[in-house]
Amino acid sequence: MRVLILGCDGYIGWPLTLHLLKCDYEVYGLDTFTRRKRVNDVGSNSVTPISSKLERNEILRSYPNFPEDVANIDMLDYENLGRLISYCEPDAIIHLAEQPSASWSMRDAKSAMQTQFDNVIGTLNLLWEMKEYCPDAHLIKLGTMGEYGTPDCGIPEGEIEEICSTIEYHNPHIATQVKCPMSGLSFPRSPGSFYHLSEVHNTHNIIFACKAWGLQSTNIMQGVVFGLSDEEEDLLTRLDYDEHFGTVINRFCAQAIIGHPLTVYGKGGQTRGFLSLKDSIQYLTFALGNPSYENKYRTLNQFEFTYTINGLAQKVVDAAKKHDIDATIQHINNPRTEAESHYYNPAHQKLFNIGYGPTKDIDKELENLIENIKKYKDRIISDVIMPKTDWRL
Amino acid sequence: MRVLILGCDGYIGWPLTLHLLKCDYEVYGLDTFTRRKRVNDVGSNSVTPISSKLERNEILRSYPNFPEDVANIDMLDYENLGRLISYCEPDAIIHLAEQPSASWSMRDAKSAMQTQFDNVIGTLNLLWEMKEYCPDAHLIKLGTMGEYGTPDCGIPEGEIEEICSTIEYHNPHIATQVKCPMSGLSFPRSPGSFYHLSEVHNTHNIIFACKAWGLQSTNIMQGVVFGLSDEEEDLLTRLDYDEHFGTVINRFCAQAIIGHPLTVYGKGGQTRGFLSLKDSIQYLTFALGNPSYENKYRTLNQFEFTYTINGLAQKVVDAAKKHDIDATIQHINNPRTEAESHYYNPAHQKLFNIGYGPTKDIDKELENLIENIKKYKDRIISDVIMPKTDWRL
Repeated sequence: MRVLILGCDGYIGWPLTLHLLKCDYEVYGLDTFTRRKRVNDVGSNSVTPISSKLERNEILRSYPNFPEDVANIDMLDYENLGRLISYCEPDAIIHLAEQPSASWSMRDAKSAMQTQFDNVIGTLNLLWEMKEYCPDAHLIKLGTMGEYGTPDCGIPEGEIEEICSTIEYHNPHIATQVKCPMSGLSFPRSPGSFYHLSEVHNTHNIIFACKAWGLQSTNIMQGVVFGLSDEEEDLLTRLDYDEHFGTVINRFCAQAIIGHPLTVYGKGGQTRGFLSLKDSIQYLTFALGNPSYENKYRTLNQFEFTYTINGLAQKVVDAAKKHDIDATIQHINNPRTEAESHYYNPAHQKLFNIGYGPTKDIDKELENLIENIKKYKDRIISDVIMPKTDWRL
Repeated sequence: MRVLILGCDGYIGWPLTLHLLKCDYEVYGLDTFTRRKRVNDVGSNSVTPISSKLERNEILRSYPNFPEDVANIDMLDYENLGRLISYCEPDAIIHLAEQPSASWSMRDAKSAMQTQFDNVIGTLNLLWEMKEYCPDAHLIKLGTMGEYGTPDCGIPEGEIEEICSTIEYHNPHIATQVKCPMSGLSFPRSPGSFYHLSEVHNTHNIIFACKAWGLQSTNIMQGVVFGLSDEEEDLLTRLDYDEHFGTVINRFCAQAIIGHPLTVYGKGGQTRGFLSLKDSIQYLTFALGNPSYENKYRTLNQFEFTYTINGLAQKVVDAAKKHDIDATIQHINNPRTEAESHYYNPAHQKLFNIGYGPTKDIDKELENLIENIKKYKDRIISDVIMPKTDWRL
């Protein structure tokens, strides 16, 4: 089975590529290394000392099932992307090649427009290329749980469910057997940044392409990923901790290691879904091996557990203590526009239903993460951690 | 009150600009004349012989309340659009400057990407400009009823309503007093082309900008517009009839006049909302004078009546007969991906609730339209009418 990974140099893309090579998939990779550049542009770096582009390409080429160099092709380059796809004839395409930072997308007009341009128009180009060159391939597109926002009701996996009450289970007064004529429609999205909006736009474009052209896609609403994969030192993936590209758990661990208080934005009652990097890779591999045979389009909500930011900060404090680090928690003004205390009850059943279960224990993973990165303590640039972008201004 | 009209040279933009000038608004206009160019590029023209850009500019400048030349500024030009907005300090912006053709957006990858680039990134730029230069202005954004598609349930005006049953009134088995915890969420959109998708993307971006920054917007889901305004000959607006830019009623009337059968795509049971151009202008003017004081963001569903395409074709046949034209109807293969027979029940109550009512009788309007354009019969290029773009291929 041939797989094309778009964004093979990223936080998830790199270890996923290695993992699929070990699983004997024939793998092709594309990356423009924009993430390296953008992290550099905001004055930051990866906590882990990652290999250069050339070194990584050599590592990949040492596998017989990685037959071509990583293609440095922009997602918006219709001609060259088409040439790549028609050459490698993928059975599946895993699309991770996006600008993934909500905070970066809210910096200014230029970054907001760049985010939606790269993500939306780039993915739209991909859909046309697939229609032209590989209409039977399975598109696995990584999106975000942030598409849904935090509505005051349960969140289904993509579509409004048949029985109203399954969505409305937090309300004990609801009749339990009312058929809902809205069932099957896309569950309304309430995203909270121009990045999250770009993913909502992608979801709508993909649903249409599957309906109009019969393309097949698994559209993944992923929670916040944290941690490292199990690779040896020269195969390590990047780990960001700055204001823009650092996700919250990774940032907390970096803060703990350098003796910086763990900074919680606002009250800290914000609740999100989380999963470890290892589980993200397992999950994507499972989706790849188990396409939907019933529907051309499916949504998966991909996370292991939900926590409040306060709860997570406390877990990082506890994990740090195991390494003799006394971490503290500090609440700062919230630069974001978001509810700081809210109902949150998203479903994530579909992959469990076909046999996949989470494998990682969060407390253990946090201890491992701190263990693995504390040797790189001196690489952490503390100036880039605190938020400077106020989303309201 | 100062109004900036984006897209002041278009089918609606031109007569709206004249109307607001007569109503004593201080009006500024922007247009890049892309519609003229694109209609030209597909080998077509306007049935009505419209004035040149320079002539129209002179006509507008003859009004003391049109103080500046029409600005030829691209919606994506951050610097110059910002300069224009900060100079004219609008109290309201009416945004009509988009690529409006579903069919054109489905021609090929390039046109699809251009449509979403112009419409989505252009409107996103406008939102940032408004935040920067006129955060208190009222944005009136013209979108389309096509955002909703044709779901198998009633369509509210923008948001899911509080009582499930008000959405589900076509189902007699529904309990009538069930509170719906999804109420207030955006009603799910099921658009049917990359153009319609671009408007869905805009809706999501606008809702967020209103929430995050407190911008004020009226987002209009407009039905299909037809007919001409009441202007004298040298002030006539354009009227398109080609595959891409001709809306269905205008195309039917052009076909009747040149003795071409009225071509119905597929079975003709497709049902849509329609309104006359005069009513569209009245409606937009009413929305301008009646901003929402309760909410920063509101959706209006703007159409007068719903009809099947078969029903409309028959009405055009009847209206043509009044002018001694024997028109015929021909069903052709549907080039679009759409249901050809479906439930359709959209609400359009909000403006009626605050006092606005439709003014035009469709049969009279159709007779007027045929009367007004039959003298331009020789201008009609029959080659451009039949659809050549198959949306499935």
